[in-house]
Amino acid sequence: MSIYNATVPQYAKILRQLDSWLTKSAAHAETVGFDPNNFLACRLAPDQFALTRQVQACCDTAKFAVSRLTGGEAPSHADTETTMDELHARIAATIAYIESVDESAFEGAGDRVIGLPFAKGMGCKGGEYLNSFALPNFYFHIGHAYAILRHNGVALGKYDFVGGMDMFPIEA
Amino acid sequence: MSIYNATVPQYAKILRQLDSWLTKSAAHAETVGFDPNNFLACRLAPDQFALTRQVQACCDTAKFAVSRLTGGEAPSHADTETTMDELHARIAATIAYIESVDESAFEGAGDRVIGLPFAKGMGCKGGEYLNSFALPNFYFHIGHAYAILRHNGVALGKYDFVGGMDMFPIEA
Repeated sequence: MSIYNATVPQYAKILRQLDSWLTKSAAHAETVGFDPNNFLACRLAPDQFALTRQVQACCDTAKFAVSRLTGGEAPSHADTETTMDELHARIAATIAYIESVDESAFEGAGDRVIGLPFAKGMGCKGGEYLNSFALPNFYFHIGHAYAILRHNGVALGKYDFVGGMDMFPIEA
Repeated sequence: MSIYNATVPQYAKILRQLDSWLTKSAAHAETVGFDPNNFLACRLAPDQFALTRQVQACCDTAKFAVSRLTGGEAPSHADTETTMDELHARIAATIAYIESVDESAFEGAGDRVIGLPFAKGMGCKGGEYLNSFALPNFYFHIGHAYAILRHNGVALGKYDFVGGMDMFPIEA
């Protein structure tokens, strides 16, 4: 169990699932006959983020988890996406960044002291940061992106969310 | 970074957050003046699980992750809950089980071969099982439980989802 496996492959896989939800949503819109970009302003409650901001947050929580755990610098994004195509590009850029970080950069990440942007002057260890903040926060936005699309009629299922895994035959 | 820290404390913390959402939902129902158990049948789409089944699934994904990773036996639950009180009890029983498993039981869990109930004759290693299936699956149901309540007017916020963390003062 390495902190690398708990971050880069998990984030990249789920971000690719997110990307596929947008693709399926656009196909659904085409079938029904409406502009797929209509999904971008959908939200589950009037005081929650709409889909665009949820996708941006999915990307940011993933990239900042990787940059903070490795002491690296995450690429900056202006949050100016207004189309499905731009959201696909944002996800692709995020995956490209996190997969560019070498596994060796995570050495000692579990004990690295990480300053918390939402609590000035406070920090926590990398392992605690990952399990108590970065993963729950990532899945908060991922879950909402999925739920917004599902609630609005896109035929997504559990496999679309969880995705594949590295399995092999075993004795019964 | 231990597989224990990635499972028991994370699952237990988020299940306690889930428990607090039910408490806040009941308070909201009392303020508005309706039966809090009305929430149990709410769902985000007609072909998705309602709240009761989402809470049961949150509990089951947590308990089975722990039992499979440690080669232990998870307690059986009959899925007969029909009230908020019974859902609180289900969550409490799940937390009690996962916190009863000693950290030492997770030794070697990352390489333990785990049979997959949804793919007969197939298995995967514990670390892959956790990152590629158990955590995403847990957060799928957790996210939906939250989203159902939030969508139905309960005043939950990000902190209610993510919860606290073990932080300390650092030099600015």
